[in-house]
Amino acid sequence: MEVNRRLNGSALARLLGGWRSRGENNLTTALTEHTRLLILDGRLPIQIRLPGERELAEALDISRTTVAAAYNRLREQGFLMSRQGSGSWVTLPNDTTTVAPAPWTPSTTAGASELDLARAALAAPRGYMNDAIAYATAQLPQFLQSSGYQLLGTAILRQAVAARLNARGLPTTEDQILITSGAQHALSVVLATLTQPGSRVLVEHPTYPNALDAIRLRGARPVPVAFVDGRWDIEMLARAARDAAPQLAYLIPDFQNPTGMVMSEEERAAIVDIARRTGTPFVIDETLTDLTIDGPRPRPLAFHDRDEDSRIITVGSASKILWGGFRIGWIRAAAPMIRRLAASRAAMDMSSPIMDQLMVAYLLPKLDAIAEKRREALRRSRDALVEQFAVYLPEWRPAAAAGGVSLWIDLGLALSSRLASEAQQQNILLTPGPRFGIDGAFERFLRIPLTVPPDQAAVAAQRLSMIWLKLRSERRPAFAPELVS
Amino acid sequence: MEVNRRLNGSALARLLGGWRSRGENNLTTALTEHTRLLILDGRLPIQIRLPGERELAEALDISRTTVAAAYNRLREQGFLMSRQGSGSWVTLPNDTTTVAPAPWTPSTTAGASELDLARAALAAPRGYMNDAIAYATAQLPQFLQSSGYQLLGTAILRQAVAARLNARGLPTTEDQILITSGAQHALSVVLATLTQPGSRVLVEHPTYPNALDAIRLRGARPVPVAFVDGRWDIEMLARAARDAAPQLAYLIPDFQNPTGMVMSEEERAAIVDIARRTGTPFVIDETLTDLTIDGPRPRPLAFHDRDEDSRIITVGSASKILWGGFRIGWIRAAAPMIRRLAASRAAMDMSSPIMDQLMVAYLLPKLDAIAEKRREALRRSRDALVEQFAVYLPEWRPAAAAGGVSLWIDLGLALSSRLASEAQQQNILLTPGPRFGIDGAFERFLRIPLTVPPDQAAVAAQRLSMIWLKLRSERRPAFAPELVS
Repeated sequence: MEVNRRLNGSALARLLGGWRSRGENNLTTALTEHTRLLILDGRLPIQIRLPGERELAEALDISRTTVAAAYNRLREQGFLMSRQGSGSWVTLPNDTTTVAPAPWTPSTTAGASELDLARAALAAPRGYMNDAIAYATAQLPQFLQSSGYQLLGTAILRQAVAARLNARGLPTTEDQILITSGAQHALSVVLATLTQPGSRVLVEHPTYPNALDAIRLRGARPVPVAFVDGRWDIEMLARAARDAAPQLAYLIPDFQNPTGMVMSEEERAAIVDIARRTGTPFVIDETLTDLTIDGPRPRPLAFHDRDEDSRIITVGSASKILWGGFRIGWIRAAAPMIRRLAASRAAMDMSSPIMDQLMVAYLLPKLDAIAEKRREALRRSRDALVEQFAVYLPEWRPAAAAGGVSLWIDLGLALSSRLASEAQQQNILLTPGPRFGIDGAFERFLRIPLTVPPDQAAVAAQRLSMIWLKLRSERRPAFAPELVS
Repeated sequence: MEVNRRLNGSALARLLGGWRSRGENNLTTALTEHTRLLILDGRLPIQIRLPGERELAEALDISRTTVAAAYNRLREQGFLMSRQGSGSWVTLPNDTTTVAPAPWTPSTTAGASELDLARAALAAPRGYMNDAIAYATAQLPQFLQSSGYQLLGTAILRQAVAARLNARGLPTTEDQILITSGAQHALSVVLATLTQPGSRVLVEHPTYPNALDAIRLRGARPVPVAFVDGRWDIEMLARAARDAAPQLAYLIPDFQNPTGMVMSEEERAAIVDIARRTGTPFVIDETLTDLTIDGPRPRPLAFHDRDEDSRIITVGSASKILWGGFRIGWIRAAAPMIRRLAASRAAMDMSSPIMDQLMVAYLLPKLDAIAEKRREALRRSRDALVEQFAVYLPEWRPAAAAGGVSLWIDLGLALSSRLASEAQQQNILLTPGPRFGIDGAFERFLRIPLTVPPDQAAVAAQRLSMIWLKLRSERRPAFAPELVS
């Protein structure tokens, strides 16, 4: 609809890969099931147009009758719509949206759950908090005679944020920084300023559920661009930025949430180029940057941006790397854009808390030392989870996670919502794959947070394994086809 | 448009009051000018339909020709629109919107201005802050092991807010409280939850500028209901709630901003009744309640609400009464409504800062003692301002201000925006009347904050008086007619 991309026969044939080797005798069934999995995984984006029957038949070297029969089954099952003259396009049956419609949020009932595998959030850096309070207490008097409203944020924190970006090699001045109440709030401010209800917002697919919620709350529409072969689809992003006329794009280049992927330097340069050529503002979510586990910390995407009239809007947050109890984030953009954003922010919530700003100003210069400890903890968690899942759930395939807070697991079967639902019965909180997608995609995936303590990894894997085995034995083949036999 | 109210001849005649006694020889000019002033003041609401020429002529006991000539002039000047069969309705010429479109906010450039008469905000209660920090520091460790996200707010603060409302005679349980990041944010959360772009929101006219900004940012449309004879127009509010089908209403019953008015108990009961009968949710902004100067503190409006399925949503804030540097407010509503609001709040900014929540939880039980001092300071400021304005600007008429943070002044001439503009040239910040209205109304009014220190009152009055005298001498009669000669 928004992005009228049409796959040609050979492109779909590539995506279908080893569809024949599934050990099924019936080619129609194999083609139907494999295509459906591509849809449920988000590898075939919703709304994409499929090649004509004859074209696909030629590309796959099978009879047109087989393709027609498979398309027909997909239509019956609600995965394909066709219209005379417009061809066929991918859709989803209504009943696959099994996820609760309420926005995902770090659970408020965590105390009541035995095992929280839904929240990807860290505890506070304990050893530093008292010193941060002491610093803030010492700085506070200079603000007490004032109204306490600081629309752009306190100079002390804006300078600390700018200093940190400069130290990372990104020239940044204080007037390029707006202090916000966290990264979620930063995105809400950008949406309120640059989009209108009905606007289109380009997103990766899958992406961060709260970003999708913020876009929907604005009344805007997410335009999903799927990953291809485990990489950003730069060509498709460029095409969507051009053809879908989005008001905004939202990307997570560092340890993408939920996939954990990191954008290459070439891809970053390409994104900057797309923003410049199409005039689309890109929100670049760099809240996870400092949570590197393996390899070097990614460089800011805006590093590639030499544009005076920059379209790159970088978002960072103390709430992710330091503590969620701090409501402090920031936006880095061209100074005129910062002033625009500040104006609409005033109508949302006026300004950010002074105590938190001062405490974060104290902690930012110590972030490398703090992050070092966090990295260690994340590495131990990740390694324990990967190890235990390999033991108890060998058919699950976790993606490589070189940093960030999530392990994105390919379950092999489209059972994620049912798994989460069963788990909830046993007081285990899970965020099923479809929360990270649009229209029920990613039923075959599950995100496990890397913030699970290592000593809980074995219990988590064991308990999930028991639920999983039960689900597998119950599953009705028509609804949960296996990818690899 | 939204509210198709039509004034009959005798109602308009009442509003026109002593129009003849203006010392003008020409009746047409007198009627035109007087009607225009009623429009600019907001006493004749935009979109209201005026009586037919014959009807008004009869009510005023003048010739129909005079009325026709006056209506004609008003049409030429852009204050009236007519359509065959629909009669004439009030509008405003495009060029009266002389106010900057940027949302009003507590100035960020206050350091640069000599005299800030725009901000109505208090300094922090100095004597209490260190103890509040000590308390928060002691409580903090119990939160540091958690993610720090508290979607509904910490139990400790929700209980403190509920306790305070109970102490004021309003039975309130913890599950009826949602902690927000200030009152502006509270309103944004309600707007995001209960309105859609295009929704109508009933507001008093004039009202708090930031509320108008929040409504517009949501893409919703404010439906203004004017005050009548210095009182809430309950009949019109009831009619608008019924006929305009608003999704929401927003009222400030305690020391209304900017007029300073206080709603009577009968009016409060009537509002609750309107909410119940029409099903319209009413946001009741009680952020100024504790800033009483004269008389008793108003009782919570929700006191009159005995409805299980209550439509009254009360908003309070620590940022107004304590300090703007705290970003803490709250919403009191029926428990199911609180859960609805919390869900969309998660998509906006997740949760509120923990340190601020703990400090405010410490300060709330001490609010009466703190408020007592604030009241004293506000009384001194108010008395000094009223006294000095009486000396230097005797033709200005400040409304009685029994509390709150504003002095609403009737300038007698529709020069407010020009006054603010001239003042700005001299580094004096003013918020002109039209910022409190819709479509340029209230050009004849100015709000002066009661937070001006008493020792600045004389300087403020003197400097404004010099600008005012200059403007008066320059004014072009056609654009700034005098109400009283």
